[in-house]
Amino acid sequence: MSVNTFGRLLRFTTWGESHGPAIGAVVDGCPPGLAIDESVIQPFLDARRPGQSKFTTQRQEPDQVRILSGVFEGRTTGTPISLMIENVDQRSKDYSEVAVAYRPGHADYAYDAKYGFRDYRGGGRSSARETASRVAAGAVARLVIPEVRIVAYVSEIGGDMIDPGKFDEAEIANNPFFCPDAAAAERWEKIVDDARKSGSSVGAVVECYASGVPAGWGAPLYAKLDADLAAAMMGINAVKGVEIGDGFAAARLSGEQNADPMRPSAEAPDGAPEFLANHAGGIAGGISTGQPVTCRVAFKPTSSILTPQQTITRSGEATEMFTKGRHDPCVGIRGVPVVEAMMALVLADHKLLHRGQCG
Amino acid sequence: MSVNTFGRLLRFTTWGESHGPAIGAVVDGCPPGLAIDESVIQPFLDARRPGQSKFTTQRQEPDQVRILSGVFEGRTTGTPISLMIENVDQRSKDYSEVAVAYRPGHADYAYDAKYGFRDYRGGGRSSARETASRVAAGAVARLVIPEVRIVAYVSEIGGDMIDPGKFDEAEIANNPFFCPDAAAAERWEKIVDDARKSGSSVGAVVECYASGVPAGWGAPLYAKLDADLAAAMMGINAVKGVEIGDGFAAARLSGEQNADPMRPSAEAPDGAPEFLANHAGGIAGGISTGQPVTCRVAFKPTSSILTPQQTITRSGEATEMFTKGRHDPCVGIRGVPVVEAMMALVLADHKLLHRGQCG
Amino acid sequence: MSVNTFGRLLRFTTWGESHGPAIGAVVDGCPPGLAIDESVIQPFLDARRPGQSKFTTQRQEPDQVRILSGVFEGRTTGTPISLMIENVDQRSKDYSEVAVAYRPGHADYAYDAKYGFRDYRGGGRSSARETASRVAAGAVARLVIPEVRIVAYVSEIGGDMIDPGKFDEAEIANNPFFCPDAAAAERWEKIVDDARKSGSSVGAVVECYASGVPAGWGAPLYAKLDADLAAAMMGINAVKGVEIGDGFAAARLSGEQNADPMRPSAEAPDGAPEFLANHAGGIAGGISTGQPVTCRVAFKPTSSILTPQQTITRSGEATEMFTKGRHDPCVGIRGVPVVEAMMALVLADHKLLHRGQCG
Amino acid sequence: MSVNTFGRLLRFTTWGESHGPAIGAVVDGCPPGLAIDESVIQPFLDARRPGQSKFTTQRQEPDQVRILSGVFEGRTTGTPISLMIENVDQRSKDYSEVAVAYRPGHADYAYDAKYGFRDYRGGGRSSARETASRVAAGAVARLVIPEVRIVAYVSEIGGDMIDPGKFDEAEIANNPFFCPDAAAAERWEKIVDDARKSGSSVGAVVECYASGVPAGWGAPLYAKLDADLAAAMMGINAVKGVEIGDGFAAARLSGEQNADPMRPSAEAPDGAPEFLANHAGGIAGGISTGQPVTCRVAFKPTSSILTPQQTITRSGEATEMFTKGRHDPCVGIRGVPVVEAMMALVLADHKLLHRGQCG
Repeated sequence: MSVNTFGRLLRFTTWGESHGPAIGAVVDGCPPGLAIDESVIQPFLDARRPGQSKFTTQRQEPDQVRILSGVFEGRTTGTPISLMIENVDQRSKDYSEVAVAYRPGHADYAYDAKYGFRDYRGGGRSSARETASRVAAGAVARLVIPEVRIVAYVSEIGGDMIDPGKFDEAEIANNPFFCPDAAAAERWEKIVDDARKSGSSVGAVVECYASGVPAGWGAPLYAKLDADLAAAMMGINAVKGVEIGDGFAAARLSGEQNADPMRPSAEAPDGAPEFLANHAGGIAGGISTGQPVTCRVAFKPTSSILTPQQTITRSGEATEMFTKGRHDPCVGIRGVPVVEAMMALVLADHKLLHRGQCG
Repeated sequence: MSVNTFGRLLRFTTWGESHGPAIGAVVDGCPPGLAIDESVIQPFLDARRPGQSKFTTQRQEPDQVRILSGVFEGRTTGTPISLMIENVDQRSKDYSEVAVAYRPGHADYAYDAKYGFRDYRGGGRSSARETASRVAAGAVARLVIPEVRIVAYVSEIGGDMIDPGKFDEAEIANNPFFCPDAAAAERWEKIVDDARKSGSSVGAVVECYASGVPAGWGAPLYAKLDADLAAAMMGINAVKGVEIGDGFAAARLSGEQNADPMRPSAEAPDGAPEFLANHAGGIAGGISTGQPVTCRVAFKPTSSILTPQQTITRSGEATEMFTKGRHDPCVGIRGVPVVEAMMALVLADHKLLHRGQCG
Repeated sequence: MSVNTFGRLLRFTTWGESHGPAIGAVVDGCPPGLAIDESVIQPFLDARRPGQSKFTTQRQEPDQVRILSGVFEGRTTGTPISLMIENVDQRSKDYSEVAVAYRPGHADYAYDAKYGFRDYRGGGRSSARETASRVAAGAVARLVIPEVRIVAYVSEIGGDMIDPGKFDEAEIANNPFFCPDAAAAERWEKIVDDARKSGSSVGAVVECYASGVPAGWGAPLYAKLDADLAAAMMGINAVKGVEIGDGFAAARLSGEQNADPMRPSAEAPDGAPEFLANHAGGIAGGISTGQPVTCRVAFKPTSSILTPQQTITRSGEATEMFTKGRHDPCVGIRGVPVVEAMMALVLADHKLLHRGQCG
Repeated sequence: MSVNTFGRLLRFTTWGESHGPAIGAVVDGCPPGLAIDESVIQPFLDARRPGQSKFTTQRQEPDQVRILSGVFEGRTTGTPISLMIENVDQRSKDYSEVAVAYRPGHADYAYDAKYGFRDYRGGGRSSARETASRVAAGAVARLVIPEVRIVAYVSEIGGDMIDPGKFDEAEIANNPFFCPDAAAAERWEKIVDDARKSGSSVGAVVECYASGVPAGWGAPLYAKLDADLAAAMMGINAVKGVEIGDGFAAARLSGEQNADPMRPSAEAPDGAPEFLANHAGGIAGGISTGQPVTCRVAFKPTSSILTPQQTITRSGEATEMFTKGRHDPCVGIRGVPVVEAMMALVLADHKLLHRGQCG
């Protein structure tokens, strides 16, 4: 089975391969009447676009999105919104090696084991290029939740963390790493450049928070807001771990340390409490509490490296391979707009779900 | 919206509250002809059952499962299997306090914010008691995947980890902590007992692996095996983090360190490769590789503690609360059979999904 | 695959066999705060209950429903509502014949072909007894749509139609046929009794209308209100045809005859039009128009008859069978409460869906 | 909510409006390795294409399909197949009238009531043009079920039926009406031409059978093969009624007349029985019996007619409207390839579902 659709009421379906003519997403279930055109979506794609610094892959893709349906006179109609992005820079390349052998760490072997064969050009469907479709869909989702503000950033590259005390949201846009700590960004230049030059790669951690989420979104038990976020994030290429709130650190706290006490708030709307901590990441029992929804996402180092590795051919013989060609030395960096998009898609979906059941 | 169903082809729906007459699960989509009766399910419920040592809640529940449908002459018929577990030990208790105020760290406030009111007896639907239904459903799922062997255990309690070098699978059943390291189990006795005596609580990490999973289960892109596992695990009560394979540690490795090289294997079936490492946790591109599927799950400390904490009443006034009554000092311990059950349910579902698309 | 769940936001899952210990339904996604207890559901089950006249099967089932979850202090909590009905009159019977041969017109052969074996006692899962679960679930759905009034009745038995000019809604409850035409009800006594006495059976047509449905429920394109109704009705045991509005008769009209002209209405709310006809059955483009939603449902004659018919055994040998024991001479009669229930379930689901997307 | 996806394992999602740049479908879940290119799909689109005789709309659309993803080296890869058809003949037209008033019998009013506004150009999303996407998706589905042969035809136009005794399958391709009875086709020329000339329209009945369907596809209870077919057919534009097997006629038969007796068959594979009749339309208990699956579908007369009809404007004032421009005098004719496509999609989906559960 192949399931290229995500979401419950607000759903999107993506299609397309790295080296096919185009990729795209169909966003279904969007409320009607929202102001939209390509210019609303494009900035998010631009943020994810490759080739903007030496720290990302040199593939040159304008990633120009086109709206093919679901919009009339500048507003969403409530019918499916078809978004298409043409593939432009499908550099002519010799794929004879990857056609017959499996790149370690890639999905090559798994695809062959499942489907019997695969589109081996640039990773085909398993290419991170697919995430452009998510970013486009996420831009639509943001229109559904104007009350929510979503910010993601890289908090760690190659094991080097930001100093939380120096967190400056304004800094995120000032460096090619989406890094909120200027000093860390400077250090990362060398880390990532070293990896790039040596044909190696490094991992990264992306953090994301969404403020403005009212209490009550989400649901017990198998549409929990945190469970849906976990699926959304773990499904991004190269992601190997997801935490909500304190995540694994919570497993090392005592009940007292992990508590999120509440007291009455004069400022909060509708008698909502003031929380004195947010270890829970804004979610309790699968339902939002009104605090910022927070998560952390671990990206493994790019599997494409220049060091030859042992592998096998399709016919089962031993060989060695290394990945030629353009690639991201740290795939987590360009994961930032993707994490934001998935956060937007999950929250928008749950806003509609909550409204559906509870009015 | 409330979604109490999990799965795609093999689906289960759970129902029931902590202090209602019963809880249960309906398992739908199970293949026909599998040998089953209550005795096949009961041992898994017994492993999760409370009150078996001083390290878990003293609620006394026999958790006797009854099969109400979907089985004929000792075999599954292919129609829905209704499983029911009666609630027996609903100790008469004064709920007047929890009825009017919100226990910090619990879902009380979130439920009220969503639904306008809640069944406050013992946590109602948000009680960990619901996980008994999952364990029962998981026992059915295991029948679907006889080729798979699933083992979960606690690897860390209150920040104290097992020594991986002393891992002994046989040890898991020998102590009340599902701990594979006898020395760690001894240390944990004191940690958990101290927490219990002081009315505090501690967190835990549960690890799980599934061997025997053939290459090819799972799917790009939004039914990825790892994404479904992440949702399954994050949806368990008290879970705050999920890792596949090396998880967050992978974000600190270089591409070379994180590689899972392959070479031909004389022993492996069907020309499957031998992998020289398993950083990926047995999943690449959302599809199983034939290696063991591995995950780690972080449980927060039980929110029910004896230390009074600031909170508010339903009418928005400041108050203090602590949780009286029976509770687990470390909810992660009894999470072990639940993690195994969710692993079984996800894998069984994907076995059927793969067969559906690929024959 | 087995799919025993119906609905999108308001979903219900049924389980149980004719001769198991019980049958039931789990209703998920119900809005919170609706007043409910068993007495709200029971009257609908009583209307469907067998053994109330000589025109229906003599199986004696009290069909007493029990609410096991999802309700607290007399109101729905928003969590799954588990409804259970015990099977009481599982008359001891010799099933040796039906165990080895296939009753023509029944699902016996199809079940065996699909699953390899079957619960042959009383039809097992394919028994019309399952419809009691739908009726119970439908009673919950009605609470979601208090603005809607649903009426179903039998319009034709054994080819003998009511006189539309003599339609009297009040008459429906006055006879054992749910017949709105007293004269027809009198004629049907003989038709059904003749069938019963001769061990034969007759078919029936059930009509249903729902008034009070506002314009705007439903959706293009694969959650059309009419498509969902068609699935709901065709899925009822013994149903072979479904019409919306004029149905097949519309295929014989000209465009002029089939038109539903509109004009402004002084009485209608919110500037809604007055329609001068309702050939469309209250649905256009898959969306309700504010007119009554109408449908017609064809029930085949009960397949259980006393005339021996040719059939084969499980091992493929020729034999003859006739159905002994209790059965409905006209299964369509007891279909009336089931048709109403399915109408309620579809409309309630679409009310929530509409609210989810469009607020 | 908007749901533009149909199917369970083999799913397709359509998008696009009558007068947007393009329409399309994304087919997900297709098994890998099936031989395909545009030439496999195009003939089915050509059969549905408008403008081929004076009996259909004069809109000129080449309906050239393009495969954008999911196919590699001429075979399906198992990933989503994106199909796009550009809109070419979006004749410049004055839409000022339809922008402000509601065409009776069309979805104009319902869309406005639901979404607050609508794309009024050529019917927007509610245009029958969307059915081209279904036909393209259906061509993919046919590849999944090579063992099945699907034939649809018009059996009745404007109340004039074919003579079943003169049924000649070879005749279907010989006339512009997909009519299997040459004499009827001749009569229909006058009926349809009269309607066309007078600016009126006529309804039609389309019949479809699928042979080669093995016993065992489908499922109790809410994924019944007949329920899914009913939804599939009722969701086609202009359809108002669906019958399986004898449909409404079965309601007029006695149990004896409606029986489908079985006897052993020397020729049938695997000990399958020979059926002596097929009143059931090849489905019992929601599961195929091995007989041909048959259905009948009622198309209302095209709502676009030249006779002015009473209606209202968006602001609620009385007005009169008639439909200018190109339209089908009998929309049921071009429904034939659409009915075939939906039959193929439902059967292919159920083949995969059955394989998933039962192996």
